[in-house]
Amino acid sequence: MSEHTYNIIELVGSSHTSIEGAVHNAIATAALAEKHLRWFEVMETRGHIEEGKVAHWQVRIRIGATTEH
Amino acid sequence: MSEHTYNIIELVGSSHTSIEGAVHNAIATAALAEKHLRWFEVMETRGHIEEGKVAHWQVRIRIGATTEH
Amino acid sequence: MSEHTYNIIELVGSSHTSIEGAVHNAIATAALAEKHLRWFEVMETRGHIEEGKVAHWQVRIRIGATTEH
Amino acid sequence: MSEHTYNIIELVGSSHTSIEGAVHNAIATAALAEKHLRWFEVMETRGHIEEGKVAHWQVRIRIGATTEH
Amino acid sequence: MSEHTYNIIELVGSSHTSIEGAVHNAIATAALAEKHLRWFEVMETRGHIEEGKVAHWQVRIRIGATTEH
Amino acid sequence: MSEHTYNIIELVGSSHTSIEGAVHNAIATAALAEKHLRWFEVMETRGHIEEGKVAHWQVRIRIGATTEH
Amino acid sequence: MSEHTYNIIELVGSSHTSIEGAVHNAIATAALAEKHLRWFEVMETRGHIEEGKVAHWQVRIRIGATTEH
Amino acid sequence: MSEHTYNIIELVGSSHTSIEGAVHNAIATAALAEKHLRWFEVMETRGHIEEGKVAHWQVRIRIGATTEH
Amino acid sequence: MSEHTYNIIELVGSSHTSIEGAVHNAIATAALAEKHLRWFEVMETRGHIEEGKVAHWQVRIRIGATTEH
Amino acid sequence: MSEHTYNIIELVGSSHTSIEGAVHNAIATAALAEKHLRWFEVMETRGHIEEGKVAHWQVRIRIGATTEH
Amino acid sequence: MSEHTYNIIELVGSSHTSIEGAVHNAIATAALAEKHLRWFEVMETRGHIEEGKVAHWQVRIRIGATTEH
Amino acid sequence: MSEHTYNIIELVGSSHTSIEGAVHNAIATAALAEKHLRWFEVMETRGHIEEGKVAHWQVRIRIGATTEH
Repeated sequence: MSEHTYNIIELVGSSHTSIEGAVHNAIATAALAEKHLRWFEVMETRGHIEEGKVAHWQVRIRIGATTEH
Repeated sequence: MSEHTYNIIELVGSSHTSIEGAVHNAIATAALAEKHLRWFEVMETRGHIEEGKVAHWQVRIRIGATTEH
Repeated sequence: MSEHTYNIIELVGSSHTSIEGAVHNAIATAALAEKHLRWFEVMETRGHIEEGKVAHWQVRIRIGATTEH
Repeated sequence: MSEHTYNIIELVGSSHTSIEGAVHNAIATAALAEKHLRWFEVMETRGHIEEGKVAHWQVRIRIGATTEH
Repeated sequence: MSEHTYNIIELVGSSHTSIEGAVHNAIATAALAEKHLRWFEVMETRGHIEEGKVAHWQVRIRIGATTEH
Repeated sequence: MSEHTYNIIELVGSSHTSIEGAVHNAIATAALAEKHLRWFEVMETRGHIEEGKVAHWQVRIRIGATTEH
Repeated sequence: MSEHTYNIIELVGSSHTSIEGAVHNAIATAALAEKHLRWFEVMETRGHIEEGKVAHWQVRIRIGATTEH
Repeated sequence: MSEHTYNIIELVGSSHTSIEGAVHNAIATAALAEKHLRWFEVMETRGHIEEGKVAHWQVRIRIGATTEH
Repeated sequence: MSEHTYNIIELVGSSHTSIEGAVHNAIATAALAEKHLRWFEVMETRGHIEEGKVAHWQVRIRIGATTEH
Repeated sequence: MSEHTYNIIELVGSSHTSIEGAVHNAIATAALAEKHLRWFEVMETRGHIEEGKVAHWQVRIRIGATTEH
Repeated sequence: MSEHTYNIIELVGSSHTSIEGAVHNAIATAALAEKHLRWFEVMETRGHIEEGKVAHWQVRIRIGATTEH
Repeated sequence: MSEHTYNIIELVGSSHTSIEGAVHNAIATAALAEKHLRWFEVMETRGHIEEGKVAHWQVRIRIGATTEH
C-alpha cells in the first residue's frame, strides 16, 4: 500500500427520517464538491423537536477524502 | 432573535426496534410533562442482549426546552 | 441480586444497511464464541464511502458477558 | 461544615452582548424557580451568526442548588 | 422487558466519612423527592480539606429513575 | 424545515481585548471567504503573556455555514 | 528492566458493600482465568438502587496482565 | 528557534467582574513568583452565586513558563 | 468574598487499605510542604495487584491551595 | 504582536517508517495547497498491520495556517 | 466489500528505543496468539525514567483482528 | 511495597528531530531540578512548521517523582 494523505472535511447533515439518512445527505452534499471520499465518522447526533416529535435528525460527521497529488 | 433560556432535561429512552425509536420514546415521555421541547442530543447509545440478540435499544438524550417566563 | 462479574469484550461490526444492522452483526459474531451476553454500548460509529455513497456502516461496541464461575 | 446535598440543574442562557451576560441570564431565570443557587460551571460556549456577526452568545451551564431538607 | 423511560437527575452528595457515604447521602436526599430510583453513576469525586485533612468527601452522581407513565 | 447541510470550518481568532473580541475577529475573517455563516462553537480559549500580562486572547472556534446547493 | 508486554482485560465487578469490594471481586474472578495480573485502573463507578438505598456497587476496571512469552 | 522547555503551572483565579478578569488575576499572582510566563490555556470556567447573581467568576488555567537553564 | 487565587498541585498517593486512604496519604504529604490546602479532586483511581489481590490503591489527585500574597 | 487569524485544516498522513514520517508527509501535502502553515497538533496515531508487522503509520493532524487578509 | 467483524484486543508494549518500537513489540506479541491482525490505534504513550533518562517507552494500543467465522 | 507518594510535574519539551527527543529534553530539564523522577506520560504532541517542514516537535508530558519524606 502506498503512502496516502487524506483531507478531513467536517459537515452537518440532516434528515426527517433517520440518523442514516442524515449521514447520507451530508455525504451526498460533500460528493458534489469533492471526489474520492473514502470514509466517515459520526461525531455527534442531535436534532430538533416540533410538537413533541423529532422534526429532523442532525449528524456532525468527519469525512476523509484522498488528496489527488 | 430574543434572549431565550432553555432548561436541559436528561432522559434514557428505549425501544425494541431502533435507535431512532428509543429517541422517539424518550421525547414522547418528556412531552407529557413539559411543553416547548426544542432540540435533543444523543449522549450515549447502548442496549440489552437476550439470547444473542438485541432485546432493546437504549439512548441517553439531553433535551432543551424553552422556559416560559 | 447476587454479586456478578462481567467480562467486557470489544468488537467492530459492519453492515451495508444500517447502524442497527452493524450492531446486530457484531453481537451475532460474539454470540458464537461466548454465551451469556447481557448488554452492549456503542462506542464509535463510522463507515466507508464508495462512489459518493455509504458502502457499509461500522460500529465499535463494548459487550458485557456474565462470567460463569 | 455539615453534610450538604446539592441538586444540579442545567440550562442554556443567551445574550446579545457577552459570554458573561449569557451566564447572568441563565442564572436569573433559574433563580425565579429555585432559591439557594450556590455555584455554576460553564460547559459549552456557542452562538448564532447573522450577517457575518455574532447575533447572540449562548452558554450551557450546570448550576448547583442547596436542597432544603 | 417493556420499553421504559428513565429520568436522569444529577446531585452532589457529601460525607465526612467516605466516598460511599457521600453517594448514600445523595441518594437518600433524592429518594425523599422521587420514588423508583434505579441506578446511579459517579461522575466526579472531590472534597474539602481542613487543617491538612479531608473535611468531607463530595461526589457528583447521575441517578436514573423510572418515569411513572 | 427543509433538510440543510452545513460545512464546518475551524479557525483560531485573536484579540488584545477579550474572548468575545477574539471570536468576533475569527468570524469576521471567515465572513470574507464564505457567506451564510450560521453558528459557532468555542472549542478552546488560550492566549499569550508578555511582561506578566495577557498580550492577546486566542480562541479556536468551529463555524457552521449553510452549503449553497 | 526487560521489555514486557501486557494484555489488557476489562471487567465489571460488583459488591454489596463498597467500591473497593467491587474491585476485589472483579480481580478475584480475573485471577481464576489468568495469572500474572499486575495492575488495574478504575474506569467507571456506578450501581443499582433498591428502596432508596444502594443495592450494590459496580466498577468497570481495566487489568494489565503479563503475557507469558 | 532553539529547543525550549516550559514548566506548566496550574492556578485558579477569580474576579467579581469577568472571565477575563479572573484570568488576569491568576496570571498576576503567578507573575509574582515566576518570571518568563509565555502562554496560558483556560481549562475550566465556573463561579459562585449569591442572591441569584454571579458573586465571582473562577477560571482554572494552565500557564507555560520558560525554564531558565 | 475576596478575589482568591489558588495554586493547583497534583500528586499520586497510595494506600494498602482503601481509595480514601490513598487520598489521605497524598494530602498528608502535600500538607508537609504547603499550608492552606483547600480542596481536592480525584482524577484517576488505579493500583497494583499481587497474587491475585489488590496490593495497594493509587489515586492521582489535584489539590487547590490558597496563595499567600 | 498583531491580531492574527488562523485557518485550521485537518489531514491524515501516513508513512511506512515512523510517526514523524507520517506527520511530515501530511504537512508536505498540505504545503502544496496552502502557504503559511504555522503549527500542527497530532490528534490520533494509528496504522495498518500486515503479516504481523506495522505496514504503515497513520496520523490525523490539525494544522494552523495564517490567513492572508 | 463483505460484512466483516473485528475483535478488538488491547495491549501494552514497551521498548528501550522508541514509541514505534513499543508498538512493534506489542503487535509481535499479539501476532503469536492471534492471526489476521489488521489495524492498531495508539491510546496512550508513557514510560519509566531511570537516572534522569527514559528507561523504556510504553504504549497502550488497541488492535483490530478479523474474526474467522 | 511501601506506601509512596509522587509529585506530578508537567512540562513541555521540544526537539528538532523527533517526538522521543522532545520527551528526552523535557526529562533532562526536569532532572536538573528534581531527583527521583520515576515515570512520564505524553499528554499532547504538537509542533511548529517553517517553510512547509516541521521546525521542531513539542510534547507536553506529566512526570511522576517520588517525594522524599
